[in-house]
Amino acid sequence: MVVATLRFMRFAKGHGTGNDFVILVDEDGSAGLSADLAAALCNRHTGIGADGVLRAVRTQALARVGEVPGIAETAHAPEWFMDYRNADGSIAEMCGNGIRVFARYLARRGLVRGNEIAFGTRAGFRTVKFGADGDVTVDMGAVSLLGPGRAVIGGTLHHGLRLSVGNPHLACLVQDRLDSFDLTSPPALDPAEFPDGANVELVRVTGPGSASMRVYERGSGETCSCGTGAVAAVAAVAHEAGLAEGSWRLTVPGGDLTVTLRATTAYLTGPAVIVAEGDLEPAWLQAAQAADASAAAD
Amino acid sequence: MVVATLRFMRFAKGHGTGNDFVILVDEDGSAGLSADLAAALCNRHTGIGADGVLRAVRTQALARVGEVPGIAETAHAPEWFMDYRNADGSIAEMCGNGIRVFARYLARRGLVRGNEIAFGTRAGFRTVKFGADGDVTVDMGAVSLLGPGRAVIGGTLHHGLRLSVGNPHLACLVQDRLDSFDLTSPPALDPAEFPDGANVELVRVTGPGSASMRVYERGSGETCSCGTGAVAAVAAVAHEAGLAEGSWRLTVPGGDLTVTLRATTAYLTGPAVIVAEGDLEPAWLQAAQAADASAAAD
Repeated sequence: MVVATLRFMRFAKGHGTGNDFVILVDEDGSAGLSADLAAALCNRHTGIGADGVLRAVRTQALARVGEVPGIAETAHAPEWFMDYRNADGSIAEMCGNGIRVFARYLARRGLVRGNEIAFGTRAGFRTVKFGADGDVTVDMGAVSLLGPGRAVIGGTLHHGLRLSVGNPHLACLVQDRLDSFDLTSPPALDPAEFPDGANVELVRVTGPGSASMRVYERGSGETCSCGTGAVAAVAAVAHEAGLAEGSWRLTVPGGDLTVTLRATTAYLTGPAVIVAEGDLEPAWLQAAQAADASAAAD
Repeated sequence: MVVATLRFMRFAKGHGTGNDFVILVDEDGSAGLSADLAAALCNRHTGIGADGVLRAVRTQALARVGEVPGIAETAHAPEWFMDYRNADGSIAEMCGNGIRVFARYLARRGLVRGNEIAFGTRAGFRTVKFGADGDVTVDMGAVSLLGPGRAVIGGTLHHGLRLSVGNPHLACLVQDRLDSFDLTSPPALDPAEFPDGANVELVRVTGPGSASMRVYERGSGETCSCGTGAVAAVAAVAHEAGLAEGSWRLTVPGGDLTVTLRATTAYLTGPAVIVAEGDLEPAWLQAAQAADASAAAD
């Protein structure tokens, strides 16, 4: 069986507060990144290793290949689309840390110019700004407060706030030190409250305008950082304080983020670091694709 | 403070049965790989991510810089030395999967030639052979059987065999399915039996000449594979069967290895895969080294 010719072999690895990504530039949308290849790339022992893959495709090319219907039909569609894949290869709409790293890398490669750039994502257009201090900010869109919710975490019932930041969250404000909680197994959620599951944040206010967070991501376990989780956590802190707007410094296990709430949207600001750039070994890629083709033939 | 100029930025990533490594070629031994930089490279979220670093240095150069005293004084010293670092940056003598990946990469780069090559390591010279089927074999040296030992694993006392494969092991032959054991926390060892701790192997004979293993590595937790652990596991199986020599197929979580026992040595055979090759981002490397210099100044 003939394995499809590889269209990309160049990759980069980057991270935002420890949320890490493999980045691929596939300008004409012809690379054919399968779920299995994305998962092989993200495998931390036999691949490059990452929380997800960020594939950059020109929006017009994506429209031509029909991969994301309707993507280029809007006037002023952004030049680049961020095709995000989870570590298991599944598709996700958006990733707040991912898009900041994505923007940094495209700028680094000279593929985008200017300080404020819009990108297409499956959750709609998202605008990213480069700060003078090296931080990158993304407009995360509106946060919806959905009422009280609860979860059993490490055998104890916790009450929190249900929120949507495009994806579902339960943010629980806690008084205890965050390292006293057990997040080795998934928090138990009420399916009536969360029919699709949710990311669960443990949030502790540490001072005026500052808080700390740990997060359990649906399907991934505890992670170093989660962009939508950071926004949900700060929105819960603001709600508790009776505030609708403001800026909070949020410490996550992988570093520090700033979340700024405005009436109609929320901004996520933080570091976006490129670690390395290189080429996938042809034999490795061929084996990953052969495994793929054989799985497809089954 | 002036940060030392970087002497290497090129890296590769490879693995042997899921035991993965960052590989650096530092021909003249001038790179100055600190423990902190090795740990930063191995960080799976903010670095490249690996179980360890394999630094290739020409033996003569290493002798010149005095890093490994006496290394080049032996007649017929190998051309290349493998400087192995654990994921936390600490030095280790040898790594059975690492040296197989190391040999593969040096051959791939054209830095070694031939089918059988000796390398210097802190545990002495080690000879590696390339198989026709793509597998790589390393002569692991002698295995010492040290008598009975025991460990509490997941609340249950297990009896096994103490062995040395350069480093200390407790190999426990078990009847139950390997996935029924809890290796999330370290097996409790008797300090009188293991003053320096040990790697612990759970080994199940699965047929004539075949066995399966899970391993808890001292200081690392459960891993996909461990070269010395594979040799220890097979030596324990052979001892139980009253055999001193022979060849066993051993399935580890990261794939399949073959261990061949001879009267005076043991051979470890298995895949050695290069995943990718690339360049560390200068800004990332500078930040890692600045953190280093600042820690050194403290």
